[in-house]
Amino acid sequence: MIVVKAGGSAGLDMQAICADVAEFTQQDARIVLVHGGSQETNTISEKLGHPPRFVTSVSGHVSRYTDRETLEIYTMVTAGRINKSLVEHLQRLGVNAVGLSGLDGRLLEGKRKAALRIVENGKTKVLRGEHSGRIERVNAGLLLTLLQTGYTPVIAPLAISYESQTVNVDGDRAAAAISSAIKAQILIILSNVPGLLQDVRDETSLIAHIPLAQAQQHLEQYAQGRMKRKLLGAIEALQQGVGKVIIADGRVSQPLHRALAGQGTVIQ
Amino acid sequence: MIVVKAGGSAGLDMQAICADVAEFTQQDARIVLVHGGSQETNTISEKLGHPPRFVTSVSGHVSRYTDRETLEIYTMVTAGRINKSLVEHLQRLGVNAVGLSGLDGRLLEGKRKAALRIVENGKTKVLRGEHSGRIERVNAGLLLTLLQTGYTPVIAPLAISYESQTVNVDGDRAAAAISSAIKAQILIILSNVPGLLQDVRDETSLIAHIPLAQAQQHLEQYAQGRMKRKLLGAIEALQQGVGKVIIADGRVSQPLHRALAGQGTVIQ
Repeated sequence: MIVVKAGGSAGLDMQAICADVAEFTQQDARIVLVHGGSQETNTISEKLGHPPRFVTSVSGHVSRYTDRETLEIYTMVTAGRINKSLVEHLQRLGVNAVGLSGLDGRLLEGKRKAALRIVENGKTKVLRGEHSGRIERVNAGLLLTLLQTGYTPVIAPLAISYESQTVNVDGDRAAAAISSAIKAQILIILSNVPGLLQDVRDETSLIAHIPLAQAQQHLEQYAQGRMKRKLLGAIEALQQGVGKVIIADGRVSQPLHRALAGQGTVIQ
Repeated sequence: MIVVKAGGSAGLDMQAICADVAEFTQQDARIVLVHGGSQETNTISEKLGHPPRFVTSVSGHVSRYTDRETLEIYTMVTAGRINKSLVEHLQRLGVNAVGLSGLDGRLLEGKRKAALRIVENGKTKVLRGEHSGRIERVNAGLLLTLLQTGYTPVIAPLAISYESQTVNVDGDRAAAAISSAIKAQILIILSNVPGLLQDVRDETSLIAHIPLAQAQQHLEQYAQGRMKRKLLGAIEALQQGVGKVIIADGRVSQPLHRALAGQGTVIQ
């Protein structure tokens, strides 16, 4: 089983990714596709007159502030627009895709974070009404039932809290949690860069291999912005039994073929 | 098994409906909930600057003109916003709901209608670029797998064409097709009226019982607007083996209890 994370940021060639998913499923590979939604949520939020707000945490991470209205837009865009458009596209390619969010059958369950500690104008403050969360449990049974009956699950990065509230979750870490839960051999995280770079301004500075033991150090030394979460997801997945994680380029033709051929950053 | 259709029009008490679904599933009833989306699609369409357009067919039916942009909004609202909000609400009540659209696993499949013959300013014309459809096949296997493993499917009224295009379908007829396919004992169609009325202006003029043989005649004589489709759905379901169809009031407390106690129009 292979878990593929794709999307969320600009530049990914979703058509090429779907074409590869179709080719591999036709060769009897079992694939779970996890997508994103940040970029389109921003566009629709602007149109609906509720522009996105990004905040900086005390630890220096920039993240979306997900108030209730943002959560509703994020849900609509991610589980409705993007998820169903991927399902339609995959179906057209002969893949019997089933789109789910983490709410469905409590697929992705975890703790809601209801407040953020942020830094604004140099001052630390607490921002309440947040609806994001961190996945702690995965309903692998539902995914395995679907995979065993020939379906290809397509998952929107939303989870359900223990109090049954919808929460926004990070797509990379959702993919990591899913790959651990179903004991996937490989997790492929497709991005709009070729992998982890020594110098973010230089795409030729790719780090091709990272042993798991050195992954945390690489995270601290080289990863910036969203790449931090991808590496964090990779470490979590490997620690929980996934065989291999490949962070690879999602902007190219045949992105899954290339990733599996070792193009990208392979963490093992 | 019971199929419940609820929503699409104003006034339904979705909380009361979900509470009843929770009570019945806790008593081991297997329920499939089919919802609507018209009303909220109109609201979001207006906000996004693409107001809904309604047209009158040559046979006098008023329906939504679903161009590509409307379809995308309809998909986002129906499969994203409404479907996941129902799943969240049911999960909070202890129901292990799984939200799907007709695209997922080709759950609802049929023919796309790409053009409408309409009457405008007294003239008949053909309006192209329509994305609605009529369900001809139901993937009962996927629903039965979910029901047998303890999930409660919640279905958004979208279908997939034979060419794998998303199409907007009527929710009442989707519920009818599903109830036939899974051989449900009962189909309950909840509406914002008490059932089929002899006089639409008089809610006390309820027709309590209709034998199947007289249903077509009742449809022609009494049904107006959306009630026509409900009766049409009822007839289709009964002809394909569903035991009983109840068109009942969805604005009241305990709507499923009341419907099953015979309050509403029972067609048999």
